[in-house]
Amino acid sequence: MPQEVGTSSAPAESRPARFLLEVLRGIAQVDFMPSALCGAVFLAALFASGWRYGLYGLLGAAVATATAHALGIDHALVGAGLRGFNGCLIGTGFAVFLGPAHLSTFLLTLFGSSLVVVVTSALAIMLGTWNVPTFTMPFCLVTSVMTVGAPGLEKAWHGAHGLAALPVPASGATALSWQQTWHAFFGNFGQIFFMPQWYVGLMFLVGIALANRLAAAMACLGSVTGLVVAVLLGSPAEGVSQGLMGYNAVLVAMALCGVFVAPSAWSVAYAIGGAGAATVLTSAFDSFVGPFGGHTFTWPFVLTAVLFVAAVPSIPRLRRT
Amino acid sequence: MPQEVGTSSAPAESRPARFLLEVLRGIAQVDFMPSALCGAVFLAALFASGWRYGLYGLLGAAVATATAHALGIDHALVGAGLRGFNGCLIGTGFAVFLGPAHLSTFLLTLFGSSLVVVVTSALAIMLGTWNVPTFTMPFCLVTSVMTVGAPGLEKAWHGAHGLAALPVPASGATALSWQQTWHAFFGNFGQIFFMPQWYVGLMFLVGIALANRLAAAMACLGSVTGLVVAVLLGSPAEGVSQGLMGYNAVLVAMALCGVFVAPSAWSVAYAIGGAGAATVLTSAFDSFVGPFGGHTFTWPFVLTAVLFVAAVPSIPRLRRT
Amino acid sequence: MPQEVGTSSAPAESRPARFLLEVLRGIAQVDFMPSALCGAVFLAALFASGWRYGLYGLLGAAVATATAHALGIDHALVGAGLRGFNGCLIGTGFAVFLGPAHLSTFLLTLFGSSLVVVVTSALAIMLGTWNVPTFTMPFCLVTSVMTVGAPGLEKAWHGAHGLAALPVPASGATALSWQQTWHAFFGNFGQIFFMPQWYVGLMFLVGIALANRLAAAMACLGSVTGLVVAVLLGSPAEGVSQGLMGYNAVLVAMALCGVFVAPSAWSVAYAIGGAGAATVLTSAFDSFVGPFGGHTFTWPFVLTAVLFVAAVPSIPRLRRT
Repeated sequence: MPQEVGTSSAPAESRPARFLLEVLRGIAQVDFMPSALCGAVFLAALFASGWRYGLYGLLGAAVATATAHALGIDHALVGAGLRGFNGCLIGTGFAVFLGPAHLSTFLLTLFGSSLVVVVTSALAIMLGTWNVPTFTMPFCLVTSVMTVGAPGLEKAWHGAHGLAALPVPASGATALSWQQTWHAFFGNFGQIFFMPQWYVGLMFLVGIALANRLAAAMACLGSVTGLVVAVLLGSPAEGVSQGLMGYNAVLVAMALCGVFVAPSAWSVAYAIGGAGAATVLTSAFDSFVGPFGGHTFTWPFVLTAVLFVAAVPSIPRLRRT
Repeated sequence: MPQEVGTSSAPAESRPARFLLEVLRGIAQVDFMPSALCGAVFLAALFASGWRYGLYGLLGAAVATATAHALGIDHALVGAGLRGFNGCLIGTGFAVFLGPAHLSTFLLTLFGSSLVVVVTSALAIMLGTWNVPTFTMPFCLVTSVMTVGAPGLEKAWHGAHGLAALPVPASGATALSWQQTWHAFFGNFGQIFFMPQWYVGLMFLVGIALANRLAAAMACLGSVTGLVVAVLLGSPAEGVSQGLMGYNAVLVAMALCGVFVAPSAWSVAYAIGGAGAATVLTSAFDSFVGPFGGHTFTWPFVLTAVLFVAAVPSIPRLRRT
Repeated sequence: MPQEVGTSSAPAESRPARFLLEVLRGIAQVDFMPSALCGAVFLAALFASGWRYGLYGLLGAAVATATAHALGIDHALVGAGLRGFNGCLIGTGFAVFLGPAHLSTFLLTLFGSSLVVVVTSALAIMLGTWNVPTFTMPFCLVTSVMTVGAPGLEKAWHGAHGLAALPVPASGATALSWQQTWHAFFGNFGQIFFMPQWYVGLMFLVGIALANRLAAAMACLGSVTGLVVAVLLGSPAEGVSQGLMGYNAVLVAMALCGVFVAPSAWSVAYAIGGAGAATVLTSAFDSFVGPFGGHTFTWPFVLTAVLFVAAVPSIPRLRRT
């Protein structure tokens, strides 16, 4: 769990093996799991989507973990994968949004996934004032800056996609076919790592389930909540079926029942409410970032989770883990 | 006053009567008044503008107050109306910006005005670090997310108004007629609840005066300050006459002399300075939110008041109430 | 150094002389130097760029310093110039972006550079929670609000430049000539005060060197870092040669090695990393502010420096000054 405590690996392991386990845990921590097995399944899912995405995700997690060690960051945190997961997302995100085949993308990934360790330390201190974790905010910050800045930097951009545009009201079909519905259910897991394929999403769900049953159940509940809210409010079916409206709801539901809030009937309701809010926020973020050419990433999850976790001490029906 | 203290109602009242008083106080707290009488006058003003706006304002305040009780939030806070006022604004705001005649607007109001209780708790904890209240920030957040997200959600939007557009330099007449001038003076009170009619604004002013003379005087001073600054800087007359340039100044002036800062000659000057700053910030916010289809709401008031209240401990000429 | 400590002037000086020294220190504190001599050189550089810019910079610093005294702000802070530097930048910035020849610009400068003292006090309290200084954030806030709000205020704007526009991908030459290269190196110092001329930048560098050798060396290193990153990533040569891509890197490099972080080999590397990050963030900010007609100012420096300084306590390789 991406709290600011963790368990260091057993001293019996060799150094490279220990580092590998830390990197795998880093990949798993994207979904809050401090489990190397889960991380290995996640990595397989990335490779299933494209070998370059797998390599970039691994590279980002490894660079961030190594940087954290070099800077002397608390071993327990690094050992639990808590300084690697933002790097993993940066690697994958840079590959997806800047193109994996450019040398510039490779070098920027090295820089970005080192830098994110500093950003994480800063945000951990600031949000720590209210006992709130940083979630994926460090990744969101670094990748937003890179992708928003890139069109002005010819040798980072190479004419990639994602131009700025004023938001326009939704149009097109909003009714989901059965196939689009179950694709959406699984896509909601995959889009956390930017991957739209249903089978990649299924692999991520399997990875979570191997590490923690409750987390997998809450992930499913979050996915259904995001899907139902998106359909009821009339979000265009095309995006919904690719998981673009539900991935934030998945993360929020896990965070608010089990990971950061103690499981209870109240916290299940809290998680559903948060997942619904994150779904509307996803639509709002899509409009907000459009004019300057940004992307929504997991900002809706981060902002929802920060508020809902910060509020817990004022709400007697709930308590923190 | 929307500080994090309040007076619980007398135990002699019946439960429904006590709840009604809490809801009315919630409506009054939009303008910082912990007075059920003031809330009743405000509610009458909303009904005078349109019966649906009255119903939505009442609904929002009632749902938020009931949610706060269900979550077990501190009774003193809820009793003083401090968990109802953001709900009241959300109900009225959703009715104005999403259209009051849709079932979706009704359901979203139920959800939004429950949710805002969580957002308020979180922000109260975070801003409490600096002894700063949350003002209407919870309402601004929830309503901004809903209105910015709505155009991407066909069944919430129904082709409503308020499309995204790049800001353009002001044009059109800036000189106010006498009628526009006094309409603006009263409109500045009504626009706090999104209502442009001068007589609705007058009713709000009467409500404030019934609860607190100083607050009414500062509200008038804020309205005049906003009006003078807008005219001197050349804001288009049409918007000024509807109160769109001065409602933030009204709230800032009340907050900075009497409500959160102890009254004195220095705090009157402080309030005038803050009201002037909030007026320029209103113009800036109009430009800022244009490209993504947002609305200014009371963000300029919130941001100005957070900074001006937070600064007080460093300024020996002023002290907090 | 803009930390919240300072040295008050010796009591032997006459009051006007003491005030003049405080104002000059205020001008110098834009680049972290608590030195009246440095401030005098900076002021000469502003006059070299245009006599009105010099007057406006002096006016802003003087009004802010006087306001701080009137409000009773801590003498040690004001004496070290720490309540004047944001005013200096506001005066110069308003002159550049609203036009120096209008009465409105003069009056708005009086108001803005008084107001910024309140904003600075508020932010000093809030960021003080994490022992982080406010940098030029107060200036960035006030000047952003003014320039974004101005196009909607006909009598503040007078049809000035800087209209809103969606960001477009970079085009045009990215290879720098030798002349553009050394112009960029010096322009990076001048653009901190919005001045593009190489000789004005050189004068600022001389001013820094007179006050502190290490700071001058780090400023040069920051300028080179910004230049190299901008060229490698393919930023259009025209902007680079005017210093528009490197002025944030200069400030970050000074802040992260010597001013707020104790000098060491690690902090030099930290400063280079931060300067590189600030350069990419500069490009991102240019895109972000475009649609609403904003300007980048020193926001990239402020945000980078806040995070990098806040992170220091978690990084055993570094320590604060």
